[in-house]
Amino acid sequence: MNDTVHLTLEEVHALAFEALVANGFSGGQARAIADTVTAAERDLCSSHGLFRIAFYLNALNNSDVDPTAVPVVSELAPAVVHVDGRFGFAPLALEMGTALLVERARAEGIAALCLNNIYHIAALWPEVECIADQGLAAFAFTAALPYMAPAGGIRPLYGTNPMAFAWPRKDHPPLVFDQASSVTARGEIQIHLRDGRSIPEGWAIGPDGNPTTDPETALKGAQLPFGGHKGAAIALMVELLAGALVGDLFSFEAAKKDTGTGAPLGGEFLIAIDPGRCVRDGDREMQLAHAEKLFEKILEQEGTRLPSDRRFAARERTPREGVRIPGSLHQTLVAYTGES
Amino acid sequence: MNDTVHLTLEEVHALAFEALVANGFSGGQARAIADTVTAAERDLCSSHGLFRIAFYLNALNNSDVDPTAVPVVSELAPAVVHVDGRFGFAPLALEMGTALLVERARAEGIAALCLNNIYHIAALWPEVECIADQGLAAFAFTAALPYMAPAGGIRPLYGTNPMAFAWPRKDHPPLVFDQASSVTARGEIQIHLRDGRSIPEGWAIGPDGNPTTDPETALKGAQLPFGGHKGAAIALMVELLAGALVGDLFSFEAAKKDTGTGAPLGGEFLIAIDPGRCVRDGDREMQLAHAEKLFEKILEQEGTRLPSDRRFAARERTPREGVRIPGSLHQTLVAYTGES
Repeated sequence: MNDTVHLTLEEVHALAFEALVANGFSGGQARAIADTVTAAERDLCSSHGLFRIAFYLNALNNSDVDPTAVPVVSELAPAVVHVDGRFGFAPLALEMGTALLVERARAEGIAALCLNNIYHIAALWPEVECIADQGLAAFAFTAALPYMAPAGGIRPLYGTNPMAFAWPRKDHPPLVFDQASSVTARGEIQIHLRDGRSIPEGWAIGPDGNPTTDPETALKGAQLPFGGHKGAAIALMVELLAGALVGDLFSFEAAKKDTGTGAPLGGEFLIAIDPGRCVRDGDREMQLAHAEKLFEKILEQEGTRLPSDRRFAARERTPREGVRIPGSLHQTLVAYTGES
Repeated sequence: MNDTVHLTLEEVHALAFEALVANGFSGGQARAIADTVTAAERDLCSSHGLFRIAFYLNALNNSDVDPTAVPVVSELAPAVVHVDGRFGFAPLALEMGTALLVERARAEGIAALCLNNIYHIAALWPEVECIADQGLAAFAFTAALPYMAPAGGIRPLYGTNPMAFAWPRKDHPPLVFDQASSVTARGEIQIHLRDGRSIPEGWAIGPDGNPTTDPETALKGAQLPFGGHKGAAIALMVELLAGALVGDLFSFEAAKKDTGTGAPLGGEFLIAIDPGRCVRDGDREMQLAHAEKLFEKILEQEGTRLPSDRRFAARERTPREGVRIPGSLHQTLVAYTGES
């Protein structure tokens, strides 16, 4: 058997969908998750691709998770959309809420989307990119499980709390970044542990608060924020937005509900802004053309690239060429579908 | 003559106001600037206190600056407020726009404030704190002059682009942070140069792109973002929000208009969110009480404090005790008033 298996993006989607449906997911939940997973494979972000299906299935061991949840969308204010995820996963709740968010942002100039009771184990870039694809600027924030210490402290309290931002571009995928408040993703430390390698200084402290390069000690201690207290301030802001603001759990509270599945339960907060409503004469084309001048200035310097350009370069090829996934992963997924 | 001069906060305000009015500022512009300067002295942030008056006066050497500007407030959309600062300074424009922003955010759940044509040489925390004092969460973003290189590049393009955030608290000043996208403030490097001291590694690169500890080389080169490419991504986001989104200048464009006064012309973007409109039953008290639980968790760890708590501790004392400013600064300010 080959080390890797070749799949078209359609095959990626079908495999994800079938693995989920065969294990109790509703068609709606499965399709939305498969969309997200396929977008990650398309962009060669394999850590959020088919590899994640096992996380979704493993999360079913938590009795609170509902793989057939039907999210409920409502309006809390003229510019605030709400989605109760009903203890299902984020992708379907986001898809349903985002449609109304975009409409509200166009009507009001700016609008917010508050999500509750979702299990979130995907990246944030798909949701902000989807909003920016429709011509709006977008932010997204979500908390996680307690992995980082507050500034000055040594015990984990904040999640690796990502913040994502997207800006619409004409004839080009949006400018997007999606970055954890920690120096590095938790998965990176786990991979170093698995491979028996030490981690770079600056990633984490041990339980005693001292810097460590040992991945096992790091996982027992706390990850470090990027940029010291400034990154910690962003992590704190994300806790407030995805927790207190939307009436949902902080990372330390999600930990109390976590049954070891590693799929945090909680909220998410998004903002969408219509650039055309933020200038007097509403000349959206001129604003987007103006932004391109900044991007040109960035790219005229050697060694630079725009955030997410690697993902966009990948998606030029993968719809045509497909992707290769590890043979063992393919085998596992086929087993999940019950067709092996 | 003493090395320092004691002033009550009322005397601080009067001195700032009179120095500005004696040099051509309108009463409205002068009062708003004096409010901001006095708030900084009250919080013992002396770098944004009376020390800044010279910056405002020096900016008058730029013929585009209007020290008597009357900002014009309008509504661009139900949830978007606009202020044309008419080439005056930020404080009056912010004060006028913020009043309507707060009203709009309460009505719509979330609202934005877009400012154009302002000269900004103050910190951002006063505006977000003022909004949070009225029970709303707030963001503020503004660009500056090109001091930082984009990720991977070596030539200055982005400003030190601050981002501020505030969260309302019951019976306590808001939680506030206001942080540059650079590791350190530009003024810190200038102070090291003045004092003949080298700067720490990691603050800047020289024009050749190599790390430098020489402040003169650093000022000719580029400041570094906090947290590497993640801080640079935030600086880029701030350029887009305070520049292209509100239809105003990027830092590199502001530089072309700068006549060496160091007071950047440009835009500012704010968002205000009503927590009570972001949950189903609108129990704002419960949301704020929930946030306090997170703050308790932070503070129960030794060595931690909340952002801005130093400022709030200072303001417990200064309204009673007043402040001390350098005698030379006092002499300069009195000379500005024409009463020396």
